[in-house]
Amino acid sequence: MINVQFAALPERWASYQAPLRAAFAEAGLEVDLRLDHAPGEVDYVVYAPNSELQDFTPYTRCKAVLSLWAGVEKIVGNQTLKMPLCRMVDPGLTAGMVEWVSGHVLRYHLGIDRTIRTQDRWDPVVPPLAEERPVTVLGLGALGQACAQMLAKLGFPVTGWSRSEKSIDGITCRHGEPGLRAALSAAEIVILLLPDTPATENTLNRDTLALLPRGARIINPGRGPLVEDDALLAALDSGQIGHATLDVFRVEPLPLDHPYWAHPNVTVTPHIAAETRAITAARVIAENIRLGEAGQPLRHQVDRNLGY
Amino acid sequence: MINVQFAALPERWASYQAPLRAAFAEAGLEVDLRLDHAPGEVDYVVYAPNSELQDFTPYTRCKAVLSLWAGVEKIVGNQTLKMPLCRMVDPGLTAGMVEWVSGHVLRYHLGIDRTIRTQDRWDPVVPPLAEERPVTVLGLGALGQACAQMLAKLGFPVTGWSRSEKSIDGITCRHGEPGLRAALSAAEIVILLLPDTPATENTLNRDTLALLPRGARIINPGRGPLVEDDALLAALDSGQIGHATLDVFRVEPLPLDHPYWAHPNVTVTPHIAAETRAITAARVIAENIRLGEAGQPLRHQVDRNLGY
Repeated sequence: MINVQFAALPERWASYQAPLRAAFAEAGLEVDLRLDHAPGEVDYVVYAPNSELQDFTPYTRCKAVLSLWAGVEKIVGNQTLKMPLCRMVDPGLTAGMVEWVSGHVLRYHLGIDRTIRTQDRWDPVVPPLAEERPVTVLGLGALGQACAQMLAKLGFPVTGWSRSEKSIDGITCRHGEPGLRAALSAAEIVILLLPDTPATENTLNRDTLALLPRGARIINPGRGPLVEDDALLAALDSGQIGHATLDVFRVEPLPLDHPYWAHPNVTVTPHIAAETRAITAARVIAENIRLGEAGQPLRHQVDRNLGY
Repeated sequence: MINVQFAALPERWASYQAPLRAAFAEAGLEVDLRLDHAPGEVDYVVYAPNSELQDFTPYTRCKAVLSLWAGVEKIVGNQTLKMPLCRMVDPGLTAGMVEWVSGHVLRYHLGIDRTIRTQDRWDPVVPPLAEERPVTVLGLGALGQACAQMLAKLGFPVTGWSRSEKSIDGITCRHGEPGLRAALSAAEIVILLLPDTPATENTLNRDTLALLPRGARIINPGRGPLVEDDALLAALDSGQIGHATLDVFRVEPLPLDHPYWAHPNVTVTPHIAAETRAITAARVIAENIRLGEAGQPLRHQVDRNLGY
């Protein structure tokens, strides 16, 4: 019998209990899944970083902490968490992100806002083809890569940038500091899908925003701290940035007096670009427990030095 | 020397002249391209159906009329046009259509209109995944097929319907009258890409609109007469149809007093979903002239009985 503790906000238990039990059964695992095991007897923790559980010291037998969230920045610095920590890479979350990013890129590409707002004249303006609209994705992890590949299928010339060198079919891959300048210099639409680490904080700042062609559009479904908010607001006011669609913020919910809400060239969305889906996420958790019990390497294990 | 007459609205000459000459050279064709050949000496007519040229009687030597438009309903009944007539299937036009359709399907799927309009509250509503959103494409010609396949790549379960039986990987294909009922019964979003023929007129009428699930959305980038306008307006008013995005109309430009303009649940776009692109279209024209000169079958030749 494998003891698994579910440590997330209580309302999650209702949506995850049945999918997890089904996934464990599917994987042939005999699991005692509970909210309240004795810490010293827990084999695995299924974990959301906003859970009450923050002190892992008594979890002496725990083989891994399996996050329900893709972003682990809130827990990666926890000194009591010494066991392996795995990020969630949920196929449902990835699909949702690809759909959201594709939709907002096409919205910008086709000028859909203008179409919706000006329903009083016949004024044919045919947009250029996607092949004439360079798009850059910052971050080539599971989410960035999936989005970059779908945008390439839609016909956009896609440049991807990551900290370390990568190679992806159909994507112009850049890396490092000089690579960032090259990736931004021609991008008409920039999508932020970097992890939130000290190294990625304020990736878009006054200097990097100035590298973009005038009127470029920003889409941030990644993490709030990737953008220096004051610099973005200034670039929006000057016209250097034409529009921004922001799904994530330093403080969430975004306070109602934040200038992003009222800015005519900003669309705020309430952190909905991607959400873990219980059914697909439960299968990922079960697979990692199966691997752990078989003594095999866990999937999506976090490198504490890199922070993701 | 091959005599080619360019017969379209005069403003098109400026955008097509250079691409056509380049495409002819590329194809190794010696062409005398002009606006004003003597009719009896013309080998091919490059043609837009709104051209002044409507009487083809004097074009006794002409081997083919090569349309710059995908839709040929305005010319297919012309009794003086007895030579082969070819529709335009421009890869640039197809790409533009796929982008426009994908953008508006994702706009509906993600609820982008609501996002743009309600910028005053943090109200997270995560849309379902595309895999939970059935989409139906009416018409599986070059454009319908390309759109259906891209929507399937984006994750939507796609049903395609055509007059005659077809089979396309990844698409549930239906045909004929019973097939239409099945294709509409589960569709949350319907895209109209049928040709404009007597058989397709009013494909969406009171009866077929009633087959859709309540609140379904309609996207018409095909041809205006595919929709019975009064029936659609009644279905929008009753809530049977949730929203319609219409790019084509029985009369264009759509008269400013038409009820579509003011309807809160209709988006009018000014026939921009797809336009022939000069560079790619010129290559298609040149290829057909090359085939014609080599005595080979022309591409995309219109069947006068079917009307497309």
